[in-house]
Amino acid sequence: MGIDVGGTKMMAVAIERSQPGVVLEQRVVPTPSTAPEVLDQIVELAAEMGAVGSLGVGLAGIVEGGEVLRAAPNLKCMIDVPARAALQDILGFSIHIENDATCALVAEMEIGVGQNISDVVLVTLGTGIGGAVAIGGEIRRGAHGFAGEPGHMCVDPSGPLCVCGRRGCWERYASGAGLEWLGQQRGLTPETGHGLVSSVELVTQARAGDDDALAVWGEFADWLALGLANLADVLDPGLLVLGGGLIEVADLYLDRTRERFVDEVLGGRSRLGTRIELAQSGPAAGAIGAALLH
Amino acid sequence: MGIDVGGTKMMAVAIERSQPGVVLEQRVVPTPSTAPEVLDQIVELAAEMGAVGSLGVGLAGIVEGGEVLRAAPNLKCMIDVPARAALQDILGFSIHIENDATCALVAEMEIGVGQNISDVVLVTLGTGIGGAVAIGGEIRRGAHGFAGEPGHMCVDPSGPLCVCGRRGCWERYASGAGLEWLGQQRGLTPETGHGLVSSVELVTQARAGDDDALAVWGEFADWLALGLANLADVLDPGLLVLGGGLIEVADLYLDRTRERFVDEVLGGRSRLGTRIELAQSGPAAGAIGAALLH
Repeated sequence: MGIDVGGTKMMAVAIERSQPGVVLEQRVVPTPSTAPEVLDQIVELAAEMGAVGSLGVGLAGIVEGGEVLRAAPNLKCMIDVPARAALQDILGFSIHIENDATCALVAEMEIGVGQNISDVVLVTLGTGIGGAVAIGGEIRRGAHGFAGEPGHMCVDPSGPLCVCGRRGCWERYASGAGLEWLGQQRGLTPETGHGLVSSVELVTQARAGDDDALAVWGEFADWLALGLANLADVLDPGLLVLGGGLIEVADLYLDRTRERFVDEVLGGRSRLGTRIELAQSGPAAGAIGAALLH
Repeated sequence: MGIDVGGTKMMAVAIERSQPGVVLEQRVVPTPSTAPEVLDQIVELAAEMGAVGSLGVGLAGIVEGGEVLRAAPNLKCMIDVPARAALQDILGFSIHIENDATCALVAEMEIGVGQNISDVVLVTLGTGIGGAVAIGGEIRRGAHGFAGEPGHMCVDPSGPLCVCGRRGCWERYASGAGLEWLGQQRGLTPETGHGLVSSVELVTQARAGDDDALAVWGEFADWLALGLANLADVLDPGLLVLGGGLIEVADLYLDRTRERFVDEVLGGRSRLGTRIELAQSGPAAGAIGAALLH
């Protein structure tokens, strides 16, 4: 069993290890706002879904030593909480904790679009942007286990303030929160009339043909291409994989992102082989990959 | 023998393979502006310095298949020229061609600051910015051999036009050309009174205590830190190495870049072990690494 704990939602899946591509059961619940509630929710899901033997948990942030979250702009309540040890104490069986995007890449390398590809970068599009990197067929975690946080690449130092405290991080534009900000910049408002227009509403409005909403998705597509091109400039992967909740509406941006990418990356016309694909396991890739941790 | 062909200068070194840390002879000449002249200059240097057996050449751009430059914003005259074959025809011995920053990383991994470090990113600060990446102790070239071009990461899509045709690439700020642009933005002019102030003049002015020139170096330091932080967000290397001509004046920016980097990178306070060091072989790292190619 695996649980993917994001900034907004938690997704739990149960799989058989012999058939990891088949999800036996799946549940989605909102992410609570305090660490004890998040841990309780994980325990409750594990109990309800009959987890036995081991549980994998993906967390939206930098996981140090497989034990504890150190930097997690979209899951601040869990920072410095010894999550693995706490869950193991309660549940009594083996717990594995890992960055959520790393989990998604585990799933895609083992049973998804990344099979047999040497160099793969995965980017999750959720509340923020997560990421993970495989080079030479292996997931690479870097010197401190902090590799794969492209969401905080600065793409405009005078841009909007990020939840990490800096300005103009890529995830201010090409994520769920980024969509809301792009919508606000275009003067779009939610039906309630105040606050930010949500990404769900932007989907509805775009599907209804609203010009401003469609323009927001166009801008989103361009920002997504820009960051993917930055990653390709540095790593030249054969495959860029998109995961996270926003890939459910990829028809609103993926074609434009693919086209734009070729113009944004250095020597783009000489590397037309670089593919941009959706995670084969869809938004469940993180939870499935968490279940595959060992 | 190795030759490093940059956008402005060519540097040739002769070494003994048994003692690669000792440069027997070194020459620097301006880079000519046409491909035949560049090739002639290489042949002339090889003849003058008595190259025998093999010659390594580092080129400032993306080298495809060890044969030909495909994208090279600062060395456009050499694009699509079959340089390796042409030089081999003339010189009659084995020629190796490689990206210039990759050459510098070869030198630093073999005989410099990168020895025994698993994950290293090297960035050359010359006319533009070059780069190379080692992960798991090996230099990684990516799916098309195009990895390691961080100079063209976009750090401001509404920034100044880059030689690559895009806007706001990192090398528009944190390179020799970037310094000239930053100087222009502050209204600094060369002694001749027209055109752009050169990085050489900015060094002289800063050493003389000119406030505007010192401010330009401060901005340069901050832009350098921003891009290094972007790279660390993605790869979390244990070591970032700076190479290229501008490291000869690192006293004008390195301390500030190191401080700023900790604030710019995600979870910087949790990864104080990330080092930023100058190439041990100095600006000659590219030429020495070219000589080590085989």
